[in-house]
Amino acid sequence: MEQHSAVGKRIPQRDAVDKVKGSAIFTNDIKLKGMLYCKILRSPLPHSRIINIDVSKAEKLIGVKAVLTYKDTPQVKFSISPTWADKLPLESEKARYIGDEIAAVAAVDEDTAQEALDLIQVDFEELPGVYDPVEAMKPGAPVIHDSVENNISKAIHMECGNIEEGFASGDLILEDTFSTQAQSHCSLETHCCVAICEPNDEIKIWVNTQAPHALRQKLSYALNIDASKIHVITPYLGGGFGSKIDLEPAQAICILLSKKSGRPVRISNTRKDQFISTRIRHPTISELKFGVKRDGTIVAKQARVVMDNGAYNSHGPAVLLYNNVMFSSLYRVENIKYEGYLVYTNKNWGGACRGYGDPQATFAQESMMDMIAERLNMDPIDLRLKNANNPNEITANKVRITSCGLRECLTQAKEASNWAEKKETKSKYRGLGIASMIYTGGGSIGSGFNYSGATMQINADGTIHLSVGAVDIGQGSNTILTQMAADVLAVDPEAIRLTTADTDTTLPCMGTFGSRVTFCAGSAVFQATNEVKNMLLEEASEILEANMEDLEMKDKEIFVKGSLGVSVTFSELASRAHYKRKKTLIGHGYYNGPEVSDDFDPTSYVGYPSPAMVFATHIAEVEIDPGTGKVDVINFVAAHDLGRAINPLLVEGQIEGAVAQGIGWALTEDLKFENGKIVNPNFHDYKILTIKDVPKITSILVETIDPNGPFGAKGIGECAMVPTAPAIVNAIYDAIGVRIKDLPATPEKIFDGLKKI
Amino acid sequence: MEQHSAVGKRIPQRDAVDKVKGSAIFTNDIKLKGMLYCKILRSPLPHSRIINIDVSKAEKLIGVKAVLTYKDTPQVKFSISPTWADKLPLESEKARYIGDEIAAVAAVDEDTAQEALDLIQVDFEELPGVYDPVEAMKPGAPVIHDSVENNISKAIHMECGNIEEGFASGDLILEDTFSTQAQSHCSLETHCCVAICEPNDEIKIWVNTQAPHALRQKLSYALNIDASKIHVITPYLGGGFGSKIDLEPAQAICILLSKKSGRPVRISNTRKDQFISTRIRHPTISELKFGVKRDGTIVAKQARVVMDNGAYNSHGPAVLLYNNVMFSSLYRVENIKYEGYLVYTNKNWGGACRGYGDPQATFAQESMMDMIAERLNMDPIDLRLKNANNPNEITANKVRITSCGLRECLTQAKEASNWAEKKETKSKYRGLGIASMIYTGGGSIGSGFNYSGATMQINADGTIHLSVGAVDIGQGSNTILTQMAADVLAVDPEAIRLTTADTDTTLPCMGTFGSRVTFCAGSAVFQATNEVKNMLLEEASEILEANMEDLEMKDKEIFVKGSLGVSVTFSELASRAHYKRKKTLIGHGYYNGPEVSDDFDPTSYVGYPSPAMVFATHIAEVEIDPGTGKVDVINFVAAHDLGRAINPLLVEGQIEGAVAQGIGWALTEDLKFENGKIVNPNFHDYKILTIKDVPKITSILVETIDPNGPFGAKGIGECAMVPTAPAIVNAIYDAIGVRIKDLPATPEKIFDGLKKI
Repeated sequence: MEQHSAVGKRIPQRDAVDKVKGSAIFTNDIKLKGMLYCKILRSPLPHSRIINIDVSKAEKLIGVKAVLTYKDTPQVKFSISPTWADKLPLESEKARYIGDEIAAVAAVDEDTAQEALDLIQVDFEELPGVYDPVEAMKPGAPVIHDSVENNISKAIHMECGNIEEGFASGDLILEDTFSTQAQSHCSLETHCCVAICEPNDEIKIWVNTQAPHALRQKLSYALNIDASKIHVITPYLGGGFGSKIDLEPAQAICILLSKKSGRPVRISNTRKDQFISTRIRHPTISELKFGVKRDGTIVAKQARVVMDNGAYNSHGPAVLLYNNVMFSSLYRVENIKYEGYLVYTNKNWGGACRGYGDPQATFAQESMMDMIAERLNMDPIDLRLKNANNPNEITANKVRITSCGLRECLTQAKEASNWAEKKETKSKYRGLGIASMIYTGGGSIGSGFNYSGATMQINADGTIHLSVGAVDIGQGSNTILTQMAADVLAVDPEAIRLTTADTDTTLPCMGTFGSRVTFCAGSAVFQATNEVKNMLLEEASEILEANMEDLEMKDKEIFVKGSLGVSVTFSELASRAHYKRKKTLIGHGYYNGPEVSDDFDPTSYVGYPSPAMVFATHIAEVEIDPGTGKVDVINFVAAHDLGRAINPLLVEGQIEGAVAQGIGWALTEDLKFENGKIVNPNFHDYKILTIKDVPKITSILVETIDPNGPFGAKGIGECAMVPTAPAIVNAIYDAIGVRIKDLPATPEKIFDGLKKI
Repeated sequence: MEQHSAVGKRIPQRDAVDKVKGSAIFTNDIKLKGMLYCKILRSPLPHSRIINIDVSKAEKLIGVKAVLTYKDTPQVKFSISPTWADKLPLESEKARYIGDEIAAVAAVDEDTAQEALDLIQVDFEELPGVYDPVEAMKPGAPVIHDSVENNISKAIHMECGNIEEGFASGDLILEDTFSTQAQSHCSLETHCCVAICEPNDEIKIWVNTQAPHALRQKLSYALNIDASKIHVITPYLGGGFGSKIDLEPAQAICILLSKKSGRPVRISNTRKDQFISTRIRHPTISELKFGVKRDGTIVAKQARVVMDNGAYNSHGPAVLLYNNVMFSSLYRVENIKYEGYLVYTNKNWGGACRGYGDPQATFAQESMMDMIAERLNMDPIDLRLKNANNPNEITANKVRITSCGLRECLTQAKEASNWAEKKETKSKYRGLGIASMIYTGGGSIGSGFNYSGATMQINADGTIHLSVGAVDIGQGSNTILTQMAADVLAVDPEAIRLTTADTDTTLPCMGTFGSRVTFCAGSAVFQATNEVKNMLLEEASEILEANMEDLEMKDKEIFVKGSLGVSVTFSELASRAHYKRKKTLIGHGYYNGPEVSDDFDPTSYVGYPSPAMVFATHIAEVEIDPGTGKVDVINFVAAHDLGRAINPLLVEGQIEGAVAQGIGWALTEDLKFENGKIVNPNFHDYKILTIKDVPKITSILVETIDPNGPFGAKGIGECAMVPTAPAIVNAIYDAIGVRIKDLPATPEKIFDGLKKI
């Protein structure tokens, strides 16, 4: 058994004291001299043509320093990539949803800025809107983006094996339709930025982004300013869940207002702003068809998915791609067909949201699996074991699986939930439900889009500096990454100073999303630290006149094994390097991969170059109140194959938080629209779980030791919310025989369902 | 002639717009949430025993969050080095000057903190004080530091050649005594810091220091906290002139107050605080004896120097060392004797101040040279040419001179000042005076104490990042260093992003002092950038299938010479490195030297391991108002051997500023004491030059192209104030025959002198 000094330890987050004390500096805490406050005028109509914008009265208001419309912007459309660009910082011709950015004001305080918004006169020509993606696809529907036929932003057609033959070979064919609702990320910290743009376009922006380096690229593109001019700094960040990956119109607006006013400009979303102007989880409608043999073998599966994009793309095209990949890769199925449509509607735009298309796919597929098990009279766990993925297999849709602990997740979750006994002794209105999932455990899209750098430096004063581009968005990557480095150097993680998330002082990192930081940034840290470790050992070997393999490290010292007292300190080694060799003890690590292999065919949507896949099984136990239809989740088991738990305490934190978010999506969280307008943009009407709503969650960490992950680790961030909703819905069915096919499973739906039985 | 794209260009400071607009963030602009304000209780007596400190009333004042006395401190004495440690952040037993730190308060605002100071009751036992270093050396004088005999903190005895034989071989022996006064640095930005100290001793301090990395070491030592816990950040800095090198008691106090209160704590000096509590230029008394042959050859020289240390050491011992080295190295003299005493008095403590002991030495020596020239009836320039240092010589006191342009300085200054003609046609009350000097052009003390690191990084997005530990203290090093890097890469200096002066994100740098940044940090930048340049050329050579020597760089592209259109961009090369090779285009540079050679004998004070020496000649033209004794400097020529001018505009800025400061020291600046108390701690009574007092200054840049300097450059920061005062005093003598031997040359002294003629 390998010995680890720091990896695998339950170390509290290194930022915990700072955050608990309130001394941690978040973007909202940045106050600059002469700073102005920005407010944005948003479209009150879901779909309209902008005829005229008159800002003259607003400009005259005392305290207003700059008013911005599209005329002041480069009018370059942006999105996650230029291919999908469809959004302007301030719209020029049309407003496409209620909340679309029309104009903005920078003033000496927020009240003045708000007052100025009321003085801006916009003449709109109202256009018919469309809010249902199925309606939007029909010929004759209102056209939201001029060049986009049938409002279909992206369509995916994927087929592998022979779907017809597959279905023909099955003993049972099941078809059904499942739909999911919009969810808001609800990070506790709202979006905020403070920007300075000098007359020479030199930009400095403090911003709570999940991806500072990527944001720099996007700002460079959208503002047509050389990236060399842009400095992105991310202070402590209070949760993202995918909502803080994009270039936000507000960020570009602040920069342009700063340029126009010559002053720093800040914007900070209110909670309402957050609900009505940031991305949401894409609602989907998934029509599934499964073919199964009597023994449970799935011989064919097919999905037709309509994904509601809202008014703009953001991550939509990639989310649809993930929906396909995750649907198609879970379980060993030879014949698969996937048809997906990403459809514009006049509503708030979808974006990256924890799980990235997978929760929608998994809700549908795992509901279907339960329905199949029932029809075959099989235990749902046995059905899943029958079809479970195995390590070192390539799926029919060409996804390479290395480590895989799905079977262990299924069996250990079964054990921990007391599944067999509880199924036997089931009381009325109580039920157990299970769901599994597959997800990326280290980002994806492959080389060129999955990079993370790290620098490790040891100074002559014995200080150890780690620098990474990755942002800790609250999940604890600062702690995890320093643990890995500490483990390599056999030092206390507290002894490592850490710099993160600053485009000037860290190596580029794609960002914190895609459950990629532990895997990708971790790999870079591992590489950089080992480079320095080797330098240390080489120097020490010379000084101590011993072979490198006879040396061991502890507490910033290197000893000759067995020779008590013969040692040299890191500080002495660094001094020697500096003073005698005029070189520095610095190592660099750069993860970037995996290479996109021939398997991957972006036109046929087969293959997916992820460095590692993770698996999980959730088992929910629920109790239903038949009088109200209210669901209580009373027990929850979450078994996760995460390669290795670098810090089990933080892993459990991730799982518990994700399950809570998953329960919210399953039961209470529903961003509701009426004619394109969100009607519940507040925490009173939009219900996220509070601590007292969260059941006991038993986390099971299945350590499969991935061959490519740092210390064998894979990601955990997103996946833990993926199978939660279907596990709950399956448990509800187990309890009362009511099958919920459209989320959330509200008391109303359950009460109605109970009445129909 | 070598071609340079950026080096040698008159580029305005890259921070100029920020500073002129007022958007530059200085330490004083840092405001943190919950921040407290610190005020320090200082000793009202010049010398006393502290009997008791009662803070109970102050602690009870509403708004006071912490009160600190020595009891709350580790009581570790500090100084520039542990050898000379004699100062506590808060004194425990004695107060040794008016201003000594006794207690401190952190409160919600400055007024409350000030009010609390008045509530602290200190019982002092007054002790007899001593204010004159000559008196302080006498037996029976009050003892300031218990263990220090005769109040002599350091004594230097240096002799080379044979001083008695030397004098015996001379035709003329001249002896005289010269004295200089205290000068305040008067940087426009006063000392300020904002410190956070967490319960686990994690420290973050924003501070206007000239040496962040060295400060970290000093804080670590004085507070007994591991350096790994300390993060020093230096924002824009508004002038230092040596006053911001030390660990300030106030910095340690803020940290300890933060620890005690659990809140960030800020201190910002008022101008009065600045005058009464920060270091000053050491007053000296120099008794010189020179032996000269009739032809002007100096055959022997001797100095006995008493330097007034004030109450604590700070840089005193090293300043005395420099006084010796610079006195002894200027001119080719075989037989030298130097005797120096650094003597404690009950006054404000001396410290590093532009020129670091050299202005005092040069004032004495260059006055003496003029007196010798008169006695020999020689032109003062001819006398200096006769004895001038030459390139590639080792002086009698074992200082290695590489490049040396002293002769060029003398002849070109003579030319530019129209010396010959003006001497011929001299009108009454007008005079010309000359003085030369030698100084370090790149720090000193040798390996281990003269280090600077730099990192150069090129990213896949084409951004170029330079990171250096050095601080731009207003002199323009940010501009100079990026010019050097830009020149190596053949890019626009504006294309280079720069990070400086942060212990977490830059390689260690000894600091910005000793005229070392251009030479030392410049060498590191040169090395780091060339490393990356080679990586670029190697990659390009592979891609373009051309030899490296056939490639040329321009605007972030590499071309094959003569093959139009065959090129590859930096961005493509960095991408390729990242994506194909998983490596980063990073280079590191580390200057550290020179090695201390056998020449250097620290016990005999012979030798001095500086990487380069600089030389200069100043010629002042003055006009005296016989009615008032007022001196007008009407013309000024400053010829400087600086190796190479990386940016002539900024070099001229340095020279002009230094000459202004030199004129101030010569004529108006005099920090006056009465019984140990400064009586003119304000800009009304302490007169620095304003822009209208500064004469036309003609700068002559003598480019000797130093063999070791980056692009041949040497330092310019300090030296330009060194020969100013003697040039003026010599000009006064030339004008009216009055020899001023004690600075400053006030109207009173001149008026009195005129009356005696």
